[in-house]
Formats: sequence, C-alpha cells, structure tokens
Amino acid sequence: MKDKVITIGREFGSGGKEIGQKLAEALGIPCYDKEIVEQVAIESGLLKEEVEKKGEYLSASGKMSTIFTLYNLYSNMTKDDIIWHAQVKVIKDLAEKGPCVIIGRCADYILRERNDVYNIFIYSDISKRIERISRLYKDISPEKLIKEKDKKRAAYYQHFTEMEWGDARHYDICLNSATLGIDKCVDIIATLEK
Amino acid sequence: MKDKVITIGREFGSGGKEIGQKLAEALGIPCYDKEIVEQVAIESGLLKEEVEKKGEYLSASGKMSTIFTLYNLYSNMTKDDIIWHAQVKVIKDLAEKGPCVIIGRCADYILRERNDVYNIFIYSDISKRIERISRLYKDISPEKLIKEKDKKRAAYYQHFTEMEWGDARHYDICLNSATLGIDKCVDIIATLEK
Repeated sequence: MKDKVITIGREFGSGGKEIGQKLAEALGIPCYDKEIVEQVAIESGLLKEEVEKKGEYLSASGKMSTIFTLYNLYSNMTKDDIIWHAQVKVIKDLAEKGPCVIIGRCADYILRERNDVYNIFIYSDISKRIERISRLYKDISPEKLIKEKDKKRAAYYQHFTEMEWGDARHYDICLNSATLGIDKCVDIIATLEK
Repeated sequence: MKDKVITIGREFGSGGKEIGQKLAEALGIPCYDKEIVEQVAIESGLLKEEVEKKGEYLSASGKMSTIFTLYNLYSNMTKDDIIWHAQVKVIKDLAEKGPCVIIGRCADYILRERNDVYNIFIYSDISKRIERISRLYKDISPEKLIKEKDKKRAAYYQHFTEMEWGDARHYDICLNSATLGIDKCVDIIATLEK
C-alpha cells in the first residue's frame, strides 16, 4: 500500500483522521488534512479560516464579500464553487506528487480517474462516537455536533459528487472502527494490495 | 471468528456466496444459503420453489392460493409476510445452534439483538460482476439480470428492515471483491476479532 494514494472518507467522531495519520506513519508516506486547507486558501485567494469553515460544508446563506460578489457576476460561481475548484486542483496536485493519505474532502471522487487510488470509508457506532467527541470537544453537546457535522458532510458530498455519502459501493473497503478498533483498521488497510 | 455468527449481504454477481462458503470452510463452521430455503418451506407450509423465488424478493402481484387467501382474511398477512416470519424463525434458530455463516436474507437485521454477530457486505465493480454472471448464467443478459436482482434485493431489504441496502453503516466491514479479490476478502474476514 505504500505506493498508493489512499483516500479516507469518515463519519464525524469515527476516528478516521487518527486511522489516516497512523496509517501514513506505518507506511512512511505523508498524510494530508489541515495542509489541504492552507493550500486551498492560497489557490483560491480566500482566508484560511473561511476555507476551513467551508472546506467540507456548503454555505447556509451563500453570502459573499464584495470582491466575490463582483467575481460572481462574471463567472456565475458561488464561493462554495470557488473553494471546490481550488480543492480539486490541490488534491490532484498532491496525488501527483506521490503516495499519500488524504483525509475527507471528496478526494475519492476527485481522484476517480487515477488507477493507483484506494478509497476507504470509516464509520462507527453512535455510542463510541459520542464518547470520542466528548473527550475531544468539551462543553459541546456531542449528539448535536455529530448530527450537524454528518448532515453537512453528506450534503456537501452529494452536492459535488451526485453520489450518496456512506454508500459502501463507492469505496474499496469500509470499516466500522467501533467493532474493529482503530489499530485493527490501520492493520487491515496497511496490508491491502490492489 | 470461528466462535461468531457471520452474516453476508451481497450484490448479485459480487462473489459474496463464494466468499461465505470459503470462509466457512476455513473456519470449520457451517454455511447456510439454500438450506434456509428448505427450512423456511417446512416452517411456512409453502413449496420450496415458491420460497426460493420469493425468499429475497417481494411479490410483484401479491397473488395467493385459496388457502392463503383464507388465511389472509383472518391474519391480515401477505404471503411475503408469512415467508418473512418463517425466515426470521429459521435464521434465529440457526444462529442459536452455534457459529455459522449465513448468506443474505436480511440476517444482519434479524440477528441485530445478538452480540456475537459480525455483519459483512460484499460488492463489486460492475464489469467484474458482468464477467462473473456471464460465466455462471449462459444465454441471459447479465446487465439486465444484475439490475433486476439488485433492485429486488434492495426493495426487499428496505421493506422489512426500513434501512438502506448497501449503506456501509449497517455492517462491521464492507469489501469490494473486485479490487480486493475473493481470497483476500476471505482472509480479512477470517482474521477479524470483535
């Protein structure tokens, strides 16, 4: 697997990011997550904070700053579209650089024409996700946060890919991190060969 | 895994049945597929051929023989319901007997209250499924057959479980047999521990 590009889609609180990081470490290849945000900000000319906020979620209001409203008049693109196109370019460039792990951001769909890509989906039981989120985010209702984040990720994925988020058939392998455990998920993926 | 009940949901032509049979052989436990049909026929009082035809598919017409029409007048059950209830009993009894592999028939849902069950979903790329079906069923359009069978299995699953067939999140692990290969799927499942 160390000569592959591995994309990891994941439910919020499933440990998909941790699995990706451990996997990349085990294979000696880079793992891209927050790094994508920085590069998309450079590519799109938007603020990093804005890209981070919208990177996997559609705008609720679609409100734009003046410069983007003017840009929109000519290009007919929303800010979501601008971020999406920058994200597509960044992810394609990262995959082109060599084997790596890419977390979220519809990378499975963006890289669908490459034949060296392995697509993974990580999910988990709700009780384990609540436990994990409670540990990571204090003073926030984990149930509410999970519901909101899942809903937004699903809407974002469906909007840009026209496919159902979490349908097993878009991936090479889908793993329940609650019943398998984080380390077993890493082991299974690390020993796959396409 | 040899002390577990393993259920295998599968797309038509994905090799899910072959994976189940090889897995059962590797673990030294029984694999139930056609055996379920025979037992459901005994349990429901219907013909084996009829159970086989309807075991994973809903009736198009819902037409019933006289005896079942009379029965229906009192119980308000369709023939599909009668087969379903017999199937639930047979699958629960088989799981109660001990570790085994059960192919299809919503066994994941039927056994959802047991904690010794591992739920697997096997799917495959369409080109590999066409190749497999062409080898197994001569003189039939594989594309048409795949489309029909998938549609019927999905409708049956959704009708009785009220869940989406093929949504990764109902299973412990979902495997693409086209990219992983039949034997690798068997290996991955055989070495899982809950």
